[in-house]
Amino acid sequence: MTYRAPVKDMLFAMKELANIDAVAQLPGFEDAGLDTAQAVLEECAKLNEDVVAPLNWEGDINPSFFKDGKVTATPGFKEAFDQYTQGGWQGLHHPTDFGGQGLPKLIHAACQEMVNAANMSFALCPLLTDGAIEALLTAGSEEQKAAFIPKMIDGTWTGTMNLTEPQAGSDLAAVRTRAEPQPDGTYKIFGTKIFITWGEHDMAENLVHLVLARVVGAPEGVKGISLFIVPKFLVNADGSLGARNDVHCVSIEHKMGIKASPTAVLQYGDNGGAIGYLVGQENRGLEYMFVMMNAARYGVGIQGLAIADRAYQRAVAYARDRVQSRPVDGSLPAAAPIIHHPDVRRMLMTMRAFTEGCRAMALVGGAAYDAAHHHPDADVRKQNQTFYEFLVPLIKGYSTEMSLEVTSLGVQVHGGMGFIEETGAAQHYRDAKILTIYEGTTAIQANDLIGRKTARDGGQAAKAIAGQIEATEQALAARSSEAAQAFAKRLGAARRAFIDVVDFVAGQTKASPNAVFAGSVNYLMLAGNLVAGWQMGRALLVAEDRLAEGEDAAFMQAKITTARFYGDHILTRVPGLRDSIVEGAAGVTDMALEAF
Amino acid sequence: MTYRAPVKDMLFAMKELANIDAVAQLPGFEDAGLDTAQAVLEECAKLNEDVVAPLNWEGDINPSFFKDGKVTATPGFKEAFDQYTQGGWQGLHHPTDFGGQGLPKLIHAACQEMVNAANMSFALCPLLTDGAIEALLTAGSEEQKAAFIPKMIDGTWTGTMNLTEPQAGSDLAAVRTRAEPQPDGTYKIFGTKIFITWGEHDMAENLVHLVLARVVGAPEGVKGISLFIVPKFLVNADGSLGARNDVHCVSIEHKMGIKASPTAVLQYGDNGGAIGYLVGQENRGLEYMFVMMNAARYGVGIQGLAIADRAYQRAVAYARDRVQSRPVDGSLPAAAPIIHHPDVRRMLMTMRAFTEGCRAMALVGGAAYDAAHHHPDADVRKQNQTFYEFLVPLIKGYSTEMSLEVTSLGVQVHGGMGFIEETGAAQHYRDAKILTIYEGTTAIQANDLIGRKTARDGGQAAKAIAGQIEATEQALAARSSEAAQAFAKRLGAARRAFIDVVDFVAGQTKASPNAVFAGSVNYLMLAGNLVAGWQMGRALLVAEDRLAEGEDAAFMQAKITTARFYGDHILTRVPGLRDSIVEGAAGVTDMALEAF
Repeated sequence: MTYRAPVKDMLFAMKELANIDAVAQLPGFEDAGLDTAQAVLEECAKLNEDVVAPLNWEGDINPSFFKDGKVTATPGFKEAFDQYTQGGWQGLHHPTDFGGQGLPKLIHAACQEMVNAANMSFALCPLLTDGAIEALLTAGSEEQKAAFIPKMIDGTWTGTMNLTEPQAGSDLAAVRTRAEPQPDGTYKIFGTKIFITWGEHDMAENLVHLVLARVVGAPEGVKGISLFIVPKFLVNADGSLGARNDVHCVSIEHKMGIKASPTAVLQYGDNGGAIGYLVGQENRGLEYMFVMMNAARYGVGIQGLAIADRAYQRAVAYARDRVQSRPVDGSLPAAAPIIHHPDVRRMLMTMRAFTEGCRAMALVGGAAYDAAHHHPDADVRKQNQTFYEFLVPLIKGYSTEMSLEVTSLGVQVHGGMGFIEETGAAQHYRDAKILTIYEGTTAIQANDLIGRKTARDGGQAAKAIAGQIEATEQALAARSSEAAQAFAKRLGAARRAFIDVVDFVAGQTKASPNAVFAGSVNYLMLAGNLVAGWQMGRALLVAEDRLAEGEDAAFMQAKITTARFYGDHILTRVPGLRDSIVEGAAGVTDMALEAF
Repeated sequence: MTYRAPVKDMLFAMKELANIDAVAQLPGFEDAGLDTAQAVLEECAKLNEDVVAPLNWEGDINPSFFKDGKVTATPGFKEAFDQYTQGGWQGLHHPTDFGGQGLPKLIHAACQEMVNAANMSFALCPLLTDGAIEALLTAGSEEQKAAFIPKMIDGTWTGTMNLTEPQAGSDLAAVRTRAEPQPDGTYKIFGTKIFITWGEHDMAENLVHLVLARVVGAPEGVKGISLFIVPKFLVNADGSLGARNDVHCVSIEHKMGIKASPTAVLQYGDNGGAIGYLVGQENRGLEYMFVMMNAARYGVGIQGLAIADRAYQRAVAYARDRVQSRPVDGSLPAAAPIIHHPDVRRMLMTMRAFTEGCRAMALVGGAAYDAAHHHPDADVRKQNQTFYEFLVPLIKGYSTEMSLEVTSLGVQVHGGMGFIEETGAAQHYRDAKILTIYEGTTAIQANDLIGRKTARDGGQAAKAIAGQIEATEQALAARSSEAAQAFAKRLGAARRAFIDVVDFVAGQTKASPNAVFAGSVNYLMLAGNLVAGWQMGRALLVAEDRLAEGEDAAFMQAKITTARFYGDHILTRVPGLRDSIVEGAAGVTDMALEAF
């Protein structure tokens, strides 16, 4: 089953929802309008459909493997990676100064979806390299940028993020990896890092590890953490590779999914100390790492909708092909392809509506990021930054949680065949489960949403979004169509529930933290559901207009139906979540610890 | 991590919700009261905790394997199976005439939960044998019963169910396996059966395949299907094993989960025809098979809550052990076990509330089955049969769907460790996914609920249950406690939503089948949620009484909190489902087939 990149839906969302025309008016993005996007997306689709996607199943049955400190990637991965980087895809949204293409995040996001839908294990390598590049762009010295970024963009080297240690997962305050300052200005790094994605492999000449460590004598907790570059091979002044650094992969994990992506345990300093270079200032490591993490969190959200789309496409193909039972309405005289059965359609629509809603949310977020970084007006930048920051936990948290439901439905559509590995649906189900965990679990995203994004400003950013949603609601209510009317009702109920919850969170976080945090993930799911649904409501409005104008009737009609489905089947979950959050804390907080 | 059978909660549900005292008044069950139940459950717990549970992970890493037509079970399984059958567990609820213990289904259900929680792959072998025994008890001749049942009960032989063929999964009308009548009254069977659980193995001397096939010249469709016994080895008149029959395992599947349970492709008649013995009358096979299937569907529902409980126990153990981050309320000065964090508690409570609710629903259903089969009064039997039949699709459909959510949360509680196979949480997640598929997918259960259980009697059985729920609601509303008041509100909202949906289904199934069936699975989820929630409401009432009487305060308080959680976090999903069902068909039915 081949992957087909959803270029048309991506361009629709870019043009009609994320307003790519406005992005193309930002300084530096003058050439990045819809035509460019279309050309880039079509090119990207080719590579991912033809080269990357066919390796997905291969990666599952022939995972990367570890032997004697070395990791060998799945056969074919290195060649695909070479094509990927040589095609300029690693540098798509990075600065032209360092060999990148300098395109907006909006366009990059769509390309990122494609490579992840094609092959999530594969895509993780560029994703982590992106994070490393972002961190160096933010905090690296000019020498560091010049030495490392171009080679990461051209694929000669790749990057990693080294945060987790056995005792320090969600809680980075517990990081113990030690950095000892040396007379020459470098540091010697000692410690163990785990869960390092693509932390060792044979697809690139060198690996650039970005490592959180604590300089000897630094304060306890998160305020004593610094960020270091620790290359696998030291780099000579002329850019050539020098000595092997004292960082070694001691094992990789045996995981439920993304098996082709090696998850390494890295040992630093067992032979005298790994040489590391401080990035930025001492003790500000976490701040820099958050730059990487925010880029990576957005990227993981994209992974969620990407794998959802792949699962959807696979399920549709099977449902068209598999013949079983007569339609329940008697409309056909014999057994029919199961896509005729209402519940199969319901499952497919659930998958599709979730995916399209999350795609729209992510692309709207991508455009906000672009405006936040490139708009000439500081107020507009700030406004967009606030909006983007509110969206990141939703894009990460909601899109990945929904991907669990979607990939489960993907298996379900296949019936018994779905449980057989060779069918391929099960791989998506297994792969997706990491998405709600890494780069901050859903609960960590939810804490971010509650703490930094809602309670801190007393719910202002949230209320501003609710105001925009209300405008969409009014536009829908003003329409005469049944679909728009129905959607307006759902959106209104969901928005009012959201406001209740925001008031609860803003009002109670200090006084009753346990009660508020008991509802944190439900709040995230509610807000994600609403914001993605809002985009579907906007899409419905546009699609009705385009339909009236005679543009692409089949696409627009499908968009209207998908939006309506989202309203009646997904937005309808929101009021119940409100009740759980605002009135449901006792069931969580009253339980005696011993009683579990 | 060891499994601990939840004997206390089982006995609570048996005594207080399923009314085991009434079961013990049924003819033949005079000795099957609470004391017997307790003794049996404690004995059963020992075997499953000590012998069966430790083999669960072993089965995953060392699955049954196929070579040269033979299947070798996971090391240790045969010895455990011998202990299981020699302990009398296979015959627990089967008639004493054939070597069984003759205990009620109510007690058997709890034991079934234990073996499935301990090791689902292992438990499938007795589960399928149970189904075969039930079918023979219903439709077999006296000679067939005498020849086969005692040896299946004592574990010398095991049973299988052969329904599925490549073109006939959910749609049994498409069965093509052929039966040719022979002059001696036997039949020769030809065809291919797939997905045959424990269809070949080395744990028993013989396998008794119950096979659906079509006698040459029989009508098309489901009315031309007959049921046959096809033993792996023919059985001589003296009961000894005779010639090898012409049924052969040609492969087993490579599955996402339940890897220790061999899923066989069986080839019948490649060497002249497999000898089969007709069970009952020709062309009534599907009717008999439904007896097996109903027993098996109930059993699969039990599997759902069993694996949910296992996942819950594992997650609790990890959450008590894993130290990470300070509590958000500042109640501890340093990082704490994650069970202190509100969202971890919310996840654990979700797992627990689902499991306890589904356990109560299943045990109440088990008691209804016992009354339906053993009560002296025909009206009472009929009433209980109707109730039981309404419950079977809920027990199967809802308990298995919830197990997907629970096992996913089980992984999530573990964070990154959950994705590492050695942790064990991932196995439950992978294993559980089969449960919503086999013995009739969730959609097949939902069709049963809509067609045979709701539309056919115009919603009468459903309304009768709603009436009983209303009585519970009134009892809750009459209490002064906050927990009871809160629960009454949720239960009332859910019951009213249920009635709306029942009216919609009863009124529209004929006129608008597509619209009704578009909501079929949502209706099943709504009804299962409500009926399990109703049991939690009843449990809350009892627990308050027992608490007032001074009985086991910790247990009763935990039950009250768990019930309250169910009300505020799970029953709250019901009104939204109502909206999707009653008002959401357009989003499913309007989509053009080509647009998917």
